[in-house]
Amino acid sequence: MKERRIVAEVSVVPLGTGSASVSEYVADCIGILEGNKEINYRLTPMGTILEGTLNEVLKVTQQMHTVPFAKGAARVVTTLKIDDRIDKELTMEGKLKSVRMRKPGVKT
Amino acid sequence: MKERRIVAEVSVVPLGTGSASVSEYVADCIGILEGNKEINYRLTPMGTILEGTLNEVLKVTQQMHTVPFAKGAARVVTTLKIDDRIDKELTMEGKLKSVRMRKPGVKT
Amino acid sequence: MKERRIVAEVSVVPLGTGSASVSEYVADCIGILEGNKEINYRLTPMGTILEGTLNEVLKVTQQMHTVPFAKGAARVVTTLKIDDRIDKELTMEGKLKSVRMRKPGVKT
Amino acid sequence: MKERRIVAEVSVVPLGTGSASVSEYVADCIGILEGNKEINYRLTPMGTILEGTLNEVLKVTQQMHTVPFAKGAARVVTTLKIDDRIDKELTMEGKLKSVRMRKPGVKT
Repeated sequence: MKERRIVAEVSVVPLGTGSASVSEYVADCIGILEGNKEINYRLTPMGTILEGTLNEVLKVTQQMHTVPFAKGAARVVTTLKIDDRIDKELTMEGKLKSVRMRKPGVKT
Repeated sequence: MKERRIVAEVSVVPLGTGSASVSEYVADCIGILEGNKEINYRLTPMGTILEGTLNEVLKVTQQMHTVPFAKGAARVVTTLKIDDRIDKELTMEGKLKSVRMRKPGVKT
Repeated sequence: MKERRIVAEVSVVPLGTGSASVSEYVADCIGILEGNKEINYRLTPMGTILEGTLNEVLKVTQQMHTVPFAKGAARVVTTLKIDDRIDKELTMEGKLKSVRMRKPGVKT
Repeated sequence: MKERRIVAEVSVVPLGTGSASVSEYVADCIGILEGNKEINYRLTPMGTILEGTLNEVLKVTQQMHTVPFAKGAARVVTTLKIDDRIDKELTMEGKLKSVRMRKPGVKT
């Protein structure tokens, strides 16, 4: 039996780095997702959307959370939002599709 | 002088509706953004990204928050995350671009 | 008629400050709430709970968001979560009380 | 060597339950924390603050996330915010204390 997949959003923010830019941290977090066959992802301007089993999503979130420390940050605030339902399959694309059916011109 | 623009993410969730689906609420929230010339938006699988002045973003967030009540929901949980910087211009596309420069193949 | 009150949580995080500590920013944000007769608040280890009308909560959130810029930060990420219901009165204490009724020893 | 502890906030929201009240779900989530010697917790009007190792916090978050499904909910949205620093020990009480030192009358 296939394990249930969830859709989630993760955001990893380093504090006290001395620079207001975080793109190098985001790029390294994305590096963790590349080559991971269990996770689909998509970067947005405000975070990273993940699709996978809850266990796998928690595992990569923990890995992404570690990235800024490895680059010298002293503090990291990571936010994870999990959307999980058992009455139908949940995918990134499926969630957008159900809005598009009601609102054809929606910008995604 | 042009007022500073921010990038934000808003998510509006109705509680106690009797249905686990929320796409009709999301579609109506998007309806508020259509035709608003002050706000750029983009729907993601986990929320709606907004780009505009802080005042305008707060105004539309308040309007989007009202949508589920108008459709009969008794309770609404709305989350707004604001990203605001004064050292350089902030746009949805600019944020993605700075990650793309470091990670050319990133999926967006 | 009395305007409906909501319960919310706000968190204001400065980026690129060169220090991993944020307590001085939090203290100044709390300064904005002191003396405000329209808002009840309570500081937690992860944010500030606000109780007031939606308009008033949005107003003080905007003021709190400005604090780190006034102290020299170049970037601020502010998160606001709004809990709003129309079927019964919502207060910080009432929300804790309904859990306490079911779980008498709960630590708050 | 003692493993580093983090402070986090978790919120578990069931969707489509037919009732706008969530206190019975919150009470059952708290039940998971009672008797767990690895985790300190504190309920706030907007979520539950957790203090423990990252591994332990992720473990109980996953358990709390499961509660509404066991009670019949079809969909659950869980939010976890992790605050983690390596330059000093992080505790719920320590975080409040550093604000109190700067703002003696702060309500907590």
